Amino acid sequence: MHILVTNDDGVQAPGLLALSQAMRPLGKVTVFAPDRNWSASGHVKTLDRPLRVRETTLIDGYPAFTSDGAPSDCVALPLLGYVDKVDLVVSGINPFSNIGHDVTYSGTVTAAMEAVIAGVPGIAFSLASQDNPSPSTPADFAPGAHIAGLIAQKVIEKGMPQGVVLNVNIPYLSVESIKGLIITRQGLRVYRDVLDRRVDPRGTPYYWIGGEEPTGVNEEGTDVGAIAAGYVSITPLQLDLTNYKAMDVLKKWKF
Amino acid sequence: MHILVTNDDGVQAPGLLALSQAMRPLGKVTVFAPDRNWSASGHVKTLDRPLRVRETTLIDGYPAFTSDGAPSDCVALPLLGYVDKVDLVVSGINPFSNIGHDVTYSGTVTAAMEAVIAGVPGIAFSLASQDNPSPSTPADFAPGAHIAGLIAQKVIEKGMPQGVVLNVNIPYLSVESIKGLIITRQGLRVYRDVLDRRVDPRGTPYYWIGGEEPTGVNEEGTDVGAIAAGYVSITPLQLDLTNYKAMDVLKKWKF
Repeated sequence: MHILVTNDDGVQAPGLLALSQAMRPLGKVTVFAPDRNWSASGHVKTLDRPLRVRETTLIDGYPAFTSDGAPSDCVALPLLGYVDKVDLVVSGINPFSNIGHDVTYSGTVTAAMEAVIAGVPGIAFSLASQDNPSPSTPADFAPGAHIAGLIAQKVIEKGMPQGVVLNVNIPYLSVESIKGLIITRQGLRVYRDVLDRRVDPRGTPYYWIGGEEPTGVNEEGTDVGAIAAGYVSITPLQLDLTNYKAMDVLKKWKF
Repeated sequence: MHILVTNDDGVQAPGLLALSQAMRPLGKVTVFAPDRNWSASGHVKTLDRPLRVRETTLIDGYPAFTSDGAPSDCVALPLLGYVDKVDLVVSGINPFSNIGHDVTYSGTVTAAMEAVIAGVPGIAFSLASQDNPSPSTPADFAPGAHIAGLIAQKVIEKGMPQGVVLNVNIPYLSVESIKGLIITRQGLRVYRDVLDRRVDPRGTPYYWIGGEEPTGVNEEGTDVGAIAAGYVSITPLQLDLTNYKAMDVLKKWKF
């Protein structure tokens, strides 16, 4: 079992270290992660420039590859042959949840998508540390890493259903306080972005996408609802985005 | 009817000009597009830096806004209030088809997704000019623009089903040669990427994601099949990526 570990926060992120440590008992682990933070970068394939790969080490001394490509490039390069055949790709642990509409923006999730497009099972792990009760202390990834290990082990044992990307979100709780692991559907995000117009010292306006943190529609059975209720949310995603019901509606339009 | 026109190839791309011209008879048109090419950039939300907006004009003198943000930022800024309320967002015309797995990578498609997440109908238009029989001559966007006009008009007339992103792919044919417009499902892409390792003048390796152009599984009823058969492909996409069938499989795993 050869497991590729990546993320979208960069090779020195504590969530990557925790995830790679959780995977080591399960097989051979290769770490291949971006050299910088790519949060909210979406699904990228870098075709207009070449990519560099550098060898480095994680804080605990474990060897890692790092590249100036996007998270999905950090999956594509190894799967195209930079390393030996990979059996499973895990991405994360993202320090914030990736729920609802976040999935198409998320570098963590699109890295797992990239694996599945290449025919390798992919799992994205995110920790809802936005719920950290003491935000000034660094997030503790240990409970999340423990859960990630359990889920990866189950996937290895059972085999991933064809074409499925697992999107796992873990509540920010101790292992004992987590109520369980449930299978969910993608919920609804409520973004609260606002246009924040400012003027630079030279009198020219510039714009931040600002506003409060997104919330979600807290509905039972969804990723949003599971996290809010203290459960680990496991959502199987697919790469077929077709809205089959809408096909019937459109067919009546008579183009 | 206020129509926002954007793309992922940049404000000076001929496909954007053609699309904006096709929309002008249908309502008030605002053009807001990236200041550079963002192909294969995916779904981006720029939160880590402010964005600049500049006024410019298209080749035909029509006014346009351009920003250093990604295509989805060029939808977010206007919808967050940079311009008056928008009723429809159209993106394109991309000079190459966006079919199968392309949809999550595509700046053209994710710009339309951004609109739908914000509650505004979104349509992505792509022209299969990779089939241009004389690749040295510039692609002719006129037939594609004509088709885009017809489809946008129909959406305005009928109203878009809730939460649907329309992904339109137009074969590279004259209007008379196009066999019709059909509603399709997302097909399967076959990527033929290879790792192309080179060594720079200073002896350090670098890597291109190289290989031949992707093909597709030419199956009836899909976007791939429609284009290959000379039809305009209209695929309704959704933002719920849940694989509902796989939920049942996973529920039996007993975590």
